[in-house]
Amino acid sequence: LTLTLLTVGDELLIGQVVNTNAAWIGEQLSAIGLSVARVVSVGDDAGAIGDELLRGLAQTDGVLITGGLGPTHDDITKRAVAAALGLRLEFREDLLAEVRRKFEARGRPMADANRLLAEVPEGFEPLANPVGTAPGLWYAGAAPGAAGERVVAILPGVPFEMKTLLREHVLPRLAVRQGEAALVQKTLHTAGAGESDLAASLDGLEDRLSDRLKLAFLPNYGTVRLRITALGDTRPDAAARLAAFEAYLRERLGDFVFGEGEVTLAAVVGEVLRARGLTVAVAESCTGGRIADAITDVPGASGYFRGGAVVYGNDTKSSLLDVDAATIARDGAVSEAVARALAAGVRERLSADLGLSATGVAGPGGGTPDKPVGTVWIGYADETGTHAVRLQLTPERHLNKRLTTTYALDLLRRQLLRRDRRAG
Amino acid sequence: LTLTLLTVGDELLIGQVVNTNAAWIGEQLSAIGLSVARVVSVGDDAGAIGDELLRGLAQTDGVLITGGLGPTHDDITKRAVAAALGLRLEFREDLLAEVRRKFEARGRPMADANRLLAEVPEGFEPLANPVGTAPGLWYAGAAPGAAGERVVAILPGVPFEMKTLLREHVLPRLAVRQGEAALVQKTLHTAGAGESDLAASLDGLEDRLSDRLKLAFLPNYGTVRLRITALGDTRPDAAARLAAFEAYLRERLGDFVFGEGEVTLAAVVGEVLRARGLTVAVAESCTGGRIADAITDVPGASGYFRGGAVVYGNDTKSSLLDVDAATIARDGAVSEAVARALAAGVRERLSADLGLSATGVAGPGGGTPDKPVGTVWIGYADETGTHAVRLQLTPERHLNKRLTTTYALDLLRRQLLRRDRRAG
Repeated sequence: LTLTLLTVGDELLIGQVVNTNAAWIGEQLSAIGLSVARVVSVGDDAGAIGDELLRGLAQTDGVLITGGLGPTHDDITKRAVAAALGLRLEFREDLLAEVRRKFEARGRPMADANRLLAEVPEGFEPLANPVGTAPGLWYAGAAPGAAGERVVAILPGVPFEMKTLLREHVLPRLAVRQGEAALVQKTLHTAGAGESDLAASLDGLEDRLSDRLKLAFLPNYGTVRLRITALGDTRPDAAARLAAFEAYLRERLGDFVFGEGEVTLAAVVGEVLRARGLTVAVAESCTGGRIADAITDVPGASGYFRGGAVVYGNDTKSSLLDVDAATIARDGAVSEAVARALAAGVRERLSADLGLSATGVAGPGGGTPDKPVGTVWIGYADETGTHAVRLQLTPERHLNKRLTTTYALDLLRRQLLRRDRRAG
Repeated sequence: LTLTLLTVGDELLIGQVVNTNAAWIGEQLSAIGLSVARVVSVGDDAGAIGDELLRGLAQTDGVLITGGLGPTHDDITKRAVAAALGLRLEFREDLLAEVRRKFEARGRPMADANRLLAEVPEGFEPLANPVGTAPGLWYAGAAPGAAGERVVAILPGVPFEMKTLLREHVLPRLAVRQGEAALVQKTLHTAGAGESDLAASLDGLEDRLSDRLKLAFLPNYGTVRLRITALGDTRPDAAARLAAFEAYLRERLGDFVFGEGEVTLAAVVGEVLRARGLTVAVAESCTGGRIADAITDVPGASGYFRGGAVVYGNDTKSSLLDVDAATIARDGAVSEAVARALAAGVRERLSADLGLSATGVAGPGGGTPDKPVGTVWIGYADETGTHAVRLQLTPERHLNKRLTTTYALDLLRRQLLRRDRRAG
């Protein structure tokens, strides 16, 4: 199937909002083998919406519309679609009751304007919205100017709601029309290996992939997401195909896999710390606070995060964390010895069970022939001793800060796995 | 004028790339009073490019195309445009010589494929590209299926090159067609006031604005950019109009304005610290390292940033920064007294000239009736004493971390201004 993607909203034309929805939807559709013929953004203008809808239905197998489903006067997508297709808008008491129930659950009165949310173009099927008030809409059938069946899906423009409805309702329906009865997707998160390293671990991968089983590598600052898409005649069939492939991936990739679904590395590490009753403290030089920032982005981090020291000047490494000035003078601030001493020092100073550290040449200045920009040491300390790893990163300061943060959190994760193995 | 924006590239349809170009262009065009009727993305497909071009020329005053101008086989925009308009491609020896010169300047051989960069659809004007190899293209004149004159601009898809060419060549030409001979733009950055506060300071603003002078408010996590656009019969005329308006803005907004052009708050504060020969250290609770991270995003921050302490646990506030445990017990960790003590403690402990601190309830948990989620104290210390400010922010953890970081850096900036005034 080939689809037209129509994103609606004045804010897209004047550049107030970047169209991230279009990219996300394009990624999802191509993951299941659908192609997007074009992406069109128009303003909150019924004529333009109707024109693009009819053009999309004439030239492609269907149109996916986002935006303009809310209760305010500029939310005109449903009216525009109904007018272009010559359909009446039906008022659905059951949908209104559902909207009213959602407002009551939040203890807020329902403004009258929300009655608009209960209008449905005749022949369209409402799609339950578990994370918002506006239902999505789905249509499959004849369309003006089109030979053969066409589909129309209308989703809210709010990214979180759009994504939920696309995943739960629209992708499965589109997969059925692609000639597959069921589609399931799952994302595994990996750290500690690049795309090519992962691929090298996956011998026989190409033989396992097929029209009914796809794998996408999605790298992101030191982590790689693996998105698995399985199709099948039935949902259990697709789920079994996915489960078998996931088992293969997990077996080959081992500890590279740190989680699945919607997680971050910091959240996964935090969950392990909480479960083991352990606390951590961080000492940062080149990352300048970014590791602590990532850890504290997780709600409830105060349960296991003791705190951190950003030791930018060499003397602060000594004065705040008792790193031996002679060690810094001998090996330099960017060295294995200092990375170990920082991790041990912050662990001790903040009375944490575990210490984590990073020291490096972030750039653009400060590089030497021995230690060029991008040279980084990350360190770890616990009650049994210290450990450090050398990284050789990039010439770019912000990229080095981000990559070091990921690698340091991954070092902590791996050391937690080792502890578990020692204990078990 | 109303334009169609056509962005070309398979990567836009499969979601590999988010279409940030479209948003940026939309913002620039609307700043000078042009409207965008629609944004269309198509793949590297000559038929689709040609169709959208002709449709845009029939329905709007012109088409701005980005992408597909490079030297590889999938860069087909020029061929597609020439075919759709029935134009020959002319080979321009002068453009080839220019491309060859650029390769030589970089000490790299010019691959033969780059000859494509010297092809120009007849009647199109090449636009010099100072930051890349592919020239842009401009056309104004008759177009098939269109009554009256139309414009076509073709720019590279690489954001930096596109922006340079749009600013230097295309916006001025479009401004002329809008009936203005020259256009100049400038951005002022403000902190410490919301959009409505700024507007309230600008009495008589509406009377000053006109078709030839526009002002856009662009808020971003506690800062607001003010983008001024002036048009005039000549460039000096436009520049004089802008200068007079800028003087009015600066006079009314005073210390709210912290910089102009491409700057960040952290970079501006860093520049002042460097110029005064002062150092700073930060103590962070609710921001969890984000303030230090922002400061160290600026290259050369090691010249004035001593370091920081992320004091997440209450006991770390005492053990690391000598905050009196009795003060915390009496007033709570989120209090004026603790904000002051943290700023003074980190200043002392890290031997910095100035101390900066933040303590608050980031959320989602931890709120009380007295101190609901979003309650934050930021503090400052120097050799003359301490100062603290209470903020009431939002229910959202990440937003609170970002806003607190901006407000803390702005507190530091204002205190530096006060020092200058005392000294002066």
